[in-house]
Amino acid sequence: MYKVYGMSISGNCYKVRLLLEQLEEHYEWHEINLLKGETLTPAFLAMNPAGQVPILEIGPKKYLVESNAILCYLAEGTPYLTDNPYLRAQTLSWLFWEQYSHERYIAVARFIKHILPAGNDRLAEIPVLHEGGYRALDIIEQHLSKNDYFVTNTYSIADISLYAYTHCAAEGGFELGKYESVKAWMQRIESQPGFREL
Amino acid sequence: MYKVYGMSISGNCYKVRLLLEQLEEHYEWHEINLLKGETLTPAFLAMNPAGQVPILEIGPKKYLVESNAILCYLAEGTPYLTDNPYLRAQTLSWLFWEQYSHERYIAVARFIKHILPAGNDRLAEIPVLHEGGYRALDIIEQHLSKNDYFVTNTYSIADISLYAYTHCAAEGGFELGKYESVKAWMQRIESQPGFREL
Repeated sequence: MYKVYGMSISGNCYKVRLLLEQLEEHYEWHEINLLKGETLTPAFLAMNPAGQVPILEIGPKKYLVESNAILCYLAEGTPYLTDNPYLRAQTLSWLFWEQYSHERYIAVARFIKHILPAGNDRLAEIPVLHEGGYRALDIIEQHLSKNDYFVTNTYSIADISLYAYTHCAAEGGFELGKYESVKAWMQRIESQPGFREL
Repeated sequence: MYKVYGMSISGNCYKVRLLLEQLEEHYEWHEINLLKGETLTPAFLAMNPAGQVPILEIGPKKYLVESNAILCYLAEGTPYLTDNPYLRAQTLSWLFWEQYSHERYIAVARFIKHILPAGNDRLAEIPVLHEGGYRALDIIEQHLSKNDYFVTNTYSIADISLYAYTHCAAEGGFELGKYESVKAWMQRIESQPGFREL
């Protein structure tokens, strides 16, 4: 049985849990609180030297890290990841883009405003994070104005990955009001079989 | 024949070119100068709404974006990407980690110090970028002190991806002197068949 080492409030960890539920896989959840330094213990760093959650344990001492890599591993051979080479590559493109151009702004703004203590020093980063985050929201709005889902017009791990932090962007101070296509897409995600909230 | 839209000095574009050469694929290179706004023209944004290089054109109006997604596409079915599910996932983990925890510091420091004009405003970002970049270098040194390559002890797209900006880190102001395992690994990369310099 899979074990997941994750922090429940983290969108990156939620991605893994959502897909496991939708695949009806059994798993054990091990709660890790990074605010208490639990990702920096020797035992944790032996699993992931980068000190990050989530980690998926697939067997004795066999660990996978990086949320989007875990999604690809779990989705292989399922309807959540196409085996068409061009469309697989498009899926990966969105996954890489999510980490580099979306999560790094939208998730980090949420972490600072919603998870760190009120009045923390990192609030000074918010204007730059909002600038990058709105740029990312504009790009997904443009794509979703012409497509129901990110790849192949079918729900896939690209949607799971991008939903994880888009749906809670307001907790990072983002206004989603004008993003009509994004809001309609989120409703489509939330009506998928096996959907669970963060 | 493949077409690549890229900026020659970019490490992300170099990744694609290096793999294409090692695979002995024919390709046309279209030079794009992002400093002259060439990634922001309507024609370019029609290929990649994110306004980033590299882009791989694999057929009429069939474009792939994100350097590491392109590497996966090109390497499929070749010795540069294993088909063992666990090891494939480890490869993807390194590729995601490269973008989020390595490139965003080391490549950006190089961009500011080596590509933007001398005395530019972004030099103020260097201390933070160096902190993150040295953290990344420490992690790859630790891994390479026990492994010849990143995955399966075989040269793969994980090595290509991580080599792209590690080998020119000095241009971003990083001192590689103490990273003995990283330096030995770079020599192994540079002795691979079909290797070409950036």
